[in-house]
Amino acid sequence: MKNKIFITVIGGDKDTASAEACKMAEEVGRLIAKAGAILVNGGLKGTMEAAAKGAKEAGGLTIGILPGSNREDANPYIDIPIITGLGYARNKLVVKTGHAVIAIDGKYGTLSEIGFALGYGIPVIGLKTWELIDSHGRVDKGIINVTTPKEAVETALKMVKKTYKPRTREKGI
Amino acid sequence: MKNKIFITVIGGDKDTASAEACKMAEEVGRLIAKAGAILVNGGLKGTMEAAAKGAKEAGGLTIGILPGSNREDANPYIDIPIITGLGYARNKLVVKTGHAVIAIDGKYGTLSEIGFALGYGIPVIGLKTWELIDSHGRVDKGIINVTTPKEAVETALKMVKKTYKPRTREKGI
Amino acid sequence: MKNKIFITVIGGDKDTASAEACKMAEEVGRLIAKAGAILVNGGLKGTMEAAAKGAKEAGGLTIGILPGSNREDANPYIDIPIITGLGYARNKLVVKTGHAVIAIDGKYGTLSEIGFALGYGIPVIGLKTWELIDSHGRVDKGIINVTTPKEAVETALKMVKKTYKPRTREKGI
Amino acid sequence: MKNKIFITVIGGDKDTASAEACKMAEEVGRLIAKAGAILVNGGLKGTMEAAAKGAKEAGGLTIGILPGSNREDANPYIDIPIITGLGYARNKLVVKTGHAVIAIDGKYGTLSEIGFALGYGIPVIGLKTWELIDSHGRVDKGIINVTTPKEAVETALKMVKKTYKPRTREKGI
Repeated sequence: MKNKIFITVIGGDKDTASAEACKMAEEVGRLIAKAGAILVNGGLKGTMEAAAKGAKEAGGLTIGILPGSNREDANPYIDIPIITGLGYARNKLVVKTGHAVIAIDGKYGTLSEIGFALGYGIPVIGLKTWELIDSHGRVDKGIINVTTPKEAVETALKMVKKTYKPRTREKGI
Repeated sequence: MKNKIFITVIGGDKDTASAEACKMAEEVGRLIAKAGAILVNGGLKGTMEAAAKGAKEAGGLTIGILPGSNREDANPYIDIPIITGLGYARNKLVVKTGHAVIAIDGKYGTLSEIGFALGYGIPVIGLKTWELIDSHGRVDKGIINVTTPKEAVETALKMVKKTYKPRTREKGI
Repeated sequence: MKNKIFITVIGGDKDTASAEACKMAEEVGRLIAKAGAILVNGGLKGTMEAAAKGAKEAGGLTIGILPGSNREDANPYIDIPIITGLGYARNKLVVKTGHAVIAIDGKYGTLSEIGFALGYGIPVIGLKTWELIDSHGRVDKGIINVTTPKEAVETALKMVKKTYKPRTREKGI
Repeated sequence: MKNKIFITVIGGDKDTASAEACKMAEEVGRLIAKAGAILVNGGLKGTMEAAAKGAKEAGGLTIGILPGSNREDANPYIDIPIITGLGYARNKLVVKTGHAVIAIDGKYGTLSEIGFALGYGIPVIGLKTWELIDSHGRVDKGIINVTTPKEAVETALKMVKKTYKPRTREKGI
């Protein structure tokens, strides 16, 4: 199993995720599982629950890296709850544990995860998520934007095969 | 899979683990898997590799919560590498992710994990590990000492069924 | 000293900080110290060194929350190096330790810090930093943009006095 | 100020610290400040409050590295509250931020900190604290035991001058 591909899906929690985002997340989760990859996310509700539900329906394995200390915080579709008790510092672990990250919509927590992933050189595929304008007024090219769950998962898998080489030194992000 | 029991095994890395400790760890890993529980450890070498080897030989699932940022640090028997990049702050996650902890011999890193587990109210079963004498010169009763891998796993499973109710508030340990 | 105001300054490290950003950071650091507030940052080079230099020249106190495990990583203007060994998970601590955050230019690490600060309800004042476009194509109003170091520090202090009430529960960011 | 010595004091919180331990902690804090060193601790009550009180009465500077997300958790003698929101993973930061550690009595949280400090090669001076018996039944020599606050602070300062060279790689503790 060690050679499996791990795909992280990030996006809003129950308070911030739209119905449309959850629908996309569920489809993304399903396609990750169908591709034989393992789903990683933050383990809570909203897009996290939707993605895990999709993955489980397609027979996949799901890992939820929880911010709190309570195993019961995990949504019902998480197979492996990782209990960090680190609060949102766990966002770093969520992105590092994946070979690639798919960002679906999302609010400020998702933004912190996009920052970490791009900083660590982990591919980020965006589905109707944040657009980043740098200090020179230019659109940042870090996020690879796509428009469908199918494209998102295909692009993530392609990026992993082609270019996966994240920075292992925690320097200069 | 969510209702599975997760058992954490802690002990020395390659520089600190004796051959005897590794032999016990391998047997502990095997018995965890045979009982249908999931093995959690720190993902590196020494007793961590031995326990994961035992679990895989018995058809189990293994989770390695790595201190560094490099997926390749995981030993070959780890199915699910969790990449924390937190250094040994990850020791807290290793113990919290298990319903119970089995400590096999071990050095100072293991000691920090025993401290966390006892502080969080997670059962700790000791196999030839540290003995703790408190400031009044009394042997601390926190660690449940056993003498064989079989007893260790049986006691861990019994403790989980009987008493698992760890503290979820991070207060006063 | 407990009632002092702590202002966090974030921005690029030596590889990503422009000369202009460093000049602004130095002035921001100076004005923070002149206002009697304490400077918090990530302790490294680039804008972090510049801000700390400015603060020290004006007689202030400087705290550097380092990602690594080496005290010597702190730039020469840091009075209090906090040694985390957490890698960039320390970004969360950098923003939480301040009553307000001033973001100067910056790259992906800065972006993760902006995400954390906005998620935790800590005021973020932007000086030629990221602009965030949400999934509906609208400019996010979280960052309060200003154009000079003077405005940045004045706005930070005003926000702290007026509205400081960050979320202390790690939920739903 | 960068060349100042930072001494960490660890011990029980309000629920676990005896009156005697608090009295020793206050004297240790006082002597640290008198020696011109800076006090680092976990920022809460019990021995943490006592040590900070002693240091402040002697005109010292105090740093409290808090587990939670609430600035108000800091005891009234903390000058610099570092807000981690990491729960007890912050214990690692408490020990790393000091050049040496003085352990006064204490319960399981203190034990985790002793494990971290010894693992990282940071000197640990013990004042009526845990005694550690290794798996061979031998008293571990890691903790340097003393009997008075005066000896504790003198030994800490001597160890820092003589031998301070902690491990900066997070490996093999």
